Amino acid sequence: MALIVQKYGGTSIANLDRIRNVAKRAIRVYNAGNDVVVVLSAMAGETNRLMELAGEIADDPSKRELDVLLATGEQTTVSLLCIMLESMGCPAISLLGYQAEIVTNKAFGRARIVEIRADRIKELLGQRKIVAVAGFQGRDQQGNITTLGKGGSDASAVALAAALKADVCEIYSDVDGVYTTDPNLCKKAKKLEKISYDEMLEMASLGAKVLQIRAVEFAKKFNVRVHVRSSFKEEEGTMVVEEEKDMERLVVSGVTYNKNEARITLTKVPDQPGIASRIFTPIADAGIVVDMIIQNTRKGGLTDLTFTVPKSDYQKAMAIQKEVAESIGTEQVLGDEQIAKVSVIGLGMRSHSGVAAKMFTTLAKENINIMMISTSEIKISCVIEEKYTELAVRILHHVFGLDSS
Amino acid sequence: MALIVQKYGGTSIANLDRIRNVAKRAIRVYNAGNDVVVVLSAMAGETNRLMELAGEIADDPSKRELDVLLATGEQTTVSLLCIMLESMGCPAISLLGYQAEIVTNKAFGRARIVEIRADRIKELLGQRKIVAVAGFQGRDQQGNITTLGKGGSDASAVALAAALKADVCEIYSDVDGVYTTDPNLCKKAKKLEKISYDEMLEMASLGAKVLQIRAVEFAKKFNVRVHVRSSFKEEEGTMVVEEEKDMERLVVSGVTYNKNEARITLTKVPDQPGIASRIFTPIADAGIVVDMIIQNTRKGGLTDLTFTVPKSDYQKAMAIQKEVAESIGTEQVLGDEQIAKVSVIGLGMRSHSGVAAKMFTTLAKENINIMMISTSEIKISCVIEEKYTELAVRILHHVFGLDSS
Repeated sequence: MALIVQKYGGTSIANLDRIRNVAKRAIRVYNAGNDVVVVLSAMAGETNRLMELAGEIADDPSKRELDVLLATGEQTTVSLLCIMLESMGCPAISLLGYQAEIVTNKAFGRARIVEIRADRIKELLGQRKIVAVAGFQGRDQQGNITTLGKGGSDASAVALAAALKADVCEIYSDVDGVYTTDPNLCKKAKKLEKISYDEMLEMASLGAKVLQIRAVEFAKKFNVRVHVRSSFKEEEGTMVVEEEKDMERLVVSGVTYNKNEARITLTKVPDQPGIASRIFTPIADAGIVVDMIIQNTRKGGLTDLTFTVPKSDYQKAMAIQKEVAESIGTEQVLGDEQIAKVSVIGLGMRSHSGVAAKMFTTLAKENINIMMISTSEIKISCVIEEKYTELAVRILHHVFGLDSS
Repeated sequence: MALIVQKYGGTSIANLDRIRNVAKRAIRVYNAGNDVVVVLSAMAGETNRLMELAGEIADDPSKRELDVLLATGEQTTVSLLCIMLESMGCPAISLLGYQAEIVTNKAFGRARIVEIRADRIKELLGQRKIVAVAGFQGRDQQGNITTLGKGGSDASAVALAAALKADVCEIYSDVDGVYTTDPNLCKKAKKLEKISYDEMLEMASLGAKVLQIRAVEFAKKFNVRVHVRSSFKEEEGTMVVEEEKDMERLVVSGVTYNKNEARITLTKVPDQPGIASRIFTPIADAGIVVDMIIQNTRKGGLTDLTFTVPKSDYQKAMAIQKEVAESIGTEQVLGDEQIAKVSVIGLGMRSHSGVAAKMFTTLAKENINIMMISTSEIKISCVIEEKYTELAVRILHHVFGLDSS
C-alpha cells in the first residue's frame, strides 16, 4: 500500500485512446491497493492553440485573463479522465487547481506555488477515490486563477507529492528516462537507473528535456522520489532521488549540449569599478538571461569580456551592447551565433580530480578549440564551435566510460 | 447612470469578430457612465461538442465530471471577451460561476440557483471595471462546479440582475424580440414593444423560443426588467416587465403553436377512484412530461381519457399505456402524432369575455376540428390536426387584430 502521484504530459493524453491507456494504468495501481493521485497537463498542443487564439485578439493579452483561458486545458483533461475512470467502474473525482487548494503567488502566467492544503485530497483518497488534479494551475490568495508557466504540471505533481508525503511521484511522458546523453545524437547513450537531484538539475538546465528544473528543485527541497518514465512502455524509467553512496561510483554520469546560445565579446573594455554593471544592467532590463560570463584582464587597465545569451535574444543583445560600447569606450563588439555548449556532469567530480583536464585533453586531441569554460561543483561546460557538437558529445561520452556495451 | 446586465447567447459570440462586436456594445454602454455586467454562454455549438466528446467515452458520463467539462465553454468566452475589452483599453475582469459566488443546489447538469453573493461584483463595478460572468455555471455548497441545464445562461443573467438590483437585464440573441406570432410562419407578425411576465411565461412554454422560462420566472419573482433584443441590430427589442395598465389595451397579445406533441387516448376507462394515478404514475416514473389532460365522462361508469406527451416520448408512452390498459381493463389505446397545439395568449382575457368563443368560431369557419381544449387565466389552447397549423395561426392572428398594417 503506497500513495502514488502520477503525472501525465500532453502527448500521453493527446486523444481519447491515450486517455483510456492512462485510466488503465491508474486503475492497475489503484487495484493493487494503492492510493492514486493523477496530475494532468492539457492535451498536446492545446495550450499553444489557446495562446494563439488570445494572440489573435491582442498582442499582449491580459495576463489574468490568459490564465483563465489556459486553465480550460487541464479542466478538460481531468474531467475526461474521470468520466473514463468512472465508466470503467473506478470511483474518481477531478479537482481543479483552486479546488485542490494549490495556492500560488499572483504572478499570472508564471506563478509560484506558495502552499498546498492537501486535506481535501486526503479525505477523497480515504474514500478510495482516484483523485485527478489539474496540473499547471492554481489560485492566488484572492481566488484568481493562476498558471505556473511552461512545464508547470511537473511542478504541480511534485508539489502535490510533497504535500501528500507520497511514496513516489511518477512523471510520465514520451521519454522513457534520463540518458547519459541525447540518444538521438549518440547511439551509445544509456538509460540511467538512478540520478541525484543535483545531477538532474544540471542535466535539466543544460537541455536534457525530461523533467522541468522547477520540479527537480521542489523534489530536492522536499525529498520527493521522482520516477521519470514513459506512458507508452511498461519498463521502469529513471529514479531521481537523494544522493546515495553507490551513486558515486561513476565520476561522470552524463554529457549534455546546448545549441541555443550565442556569444558576445566586448574587447578592450576599460577595467573600472562599475563597468560590469553598465554592461549587464541594460541586458537584464531587456529581460535577457545571461548564461556564462568570462573576463580576461589585458595589460594597461583594459579587459576583454565575453558572455552568452539565448540565440533568440542575440540581435537585441547585440544592439544594446553596441550602444553601451559607445558610451564606455569599448574597442569592439563581436558576436558569434555558431557556438555550442558541451557539458559533463557528475557528483563524482567532487572527489575525483582530473575531470576537467581529461575533458580539455579529449577535445584538444580532436582539434576542437575551447572558446569559453565554466565550472560548478558537479559540472564542467565548454563553449566550442557549433559544428563540432556531435563529435564532442560522442567522444566525451566514450572517454568518461558511459558508452553502452 | 445605471447598472446594466447584458447576456449574450452562443450565436452572438460564435467567433472572434462577433466577440469584438459584443465588446464594442459593452464599452459603448460603459462609456456612457453605466456599470456593466456581461453574462456569456459558450460559443454556439461548443456545449454540444463537449457533450458528444463525453458521450464517446461513456453512455452515461459522470454528471459531476460532465459539468466540469461543460464549464470550460463559458470559461473560454469570458476570458476571450476580457482579453478583447482590455486590448481596447477598457478595464475588465472575468468571473467564473464559483468566483461570482453563484451558489446552486447539487443537482449536476440541472442545478438551481440558491443564492448569489454579489459583493465581489459590486466591488469590481465600484472599481469601474466591466465584469464578465460565466453564465450557465455555479458551484454547490461543497465547491463542486455545477451547471444549470439548457438555457441556464439566461437564468444566470436574470438572477445576477436581481442580486445586483440592476436597472435592466438585456438578453441578446439572434432574435430581435418577442413577436405576436412566429414571423417565419406569418408575415404579418409584429414585434411587441412590451410584454408582461405572465404572458411571456405562456409564450415561452408554448414554444416562442426567445427567453428561457426559468429566466422569466426569476424575473417575475424579483421584478427584473428584461430587454430581449438582437446583438446583430441596433434597434430596441421587447421589454418583459411587470404588468402595466396600458398593456391591457390588447386582449390577445400573441398566437403560438407547438408541433412537438403527440396525443394518446384511452377509451372506456373504468371511472374509479385511483384510476388516474394508475395511468399517470408509470408515465411520470418514465420521466415523461404530460402537457394537456382531458377527461370526458361516458355513461355507465366509463370515461375517455386523452393526454398529450412530447413526440420524442410518444413510443415509450404508448408502450406503457398498453400495459396499463390491460391491467385496468381499458377498451382501446389510441395514438396520434399528427397534431398541433395552437394557443392565444393575453392578459386582456381576464377582463374580456368571449375570447374563447371567438377562437372556436374562427377555427370552425375554416373547418378546423378542435380535438382538445385547455385554458388558463390568460391562455386558450386548442389541439388540432397538424396540417392546419399555419392556417390556424394566421387566421387567429388576423381576427384578434394582431396583423401589422
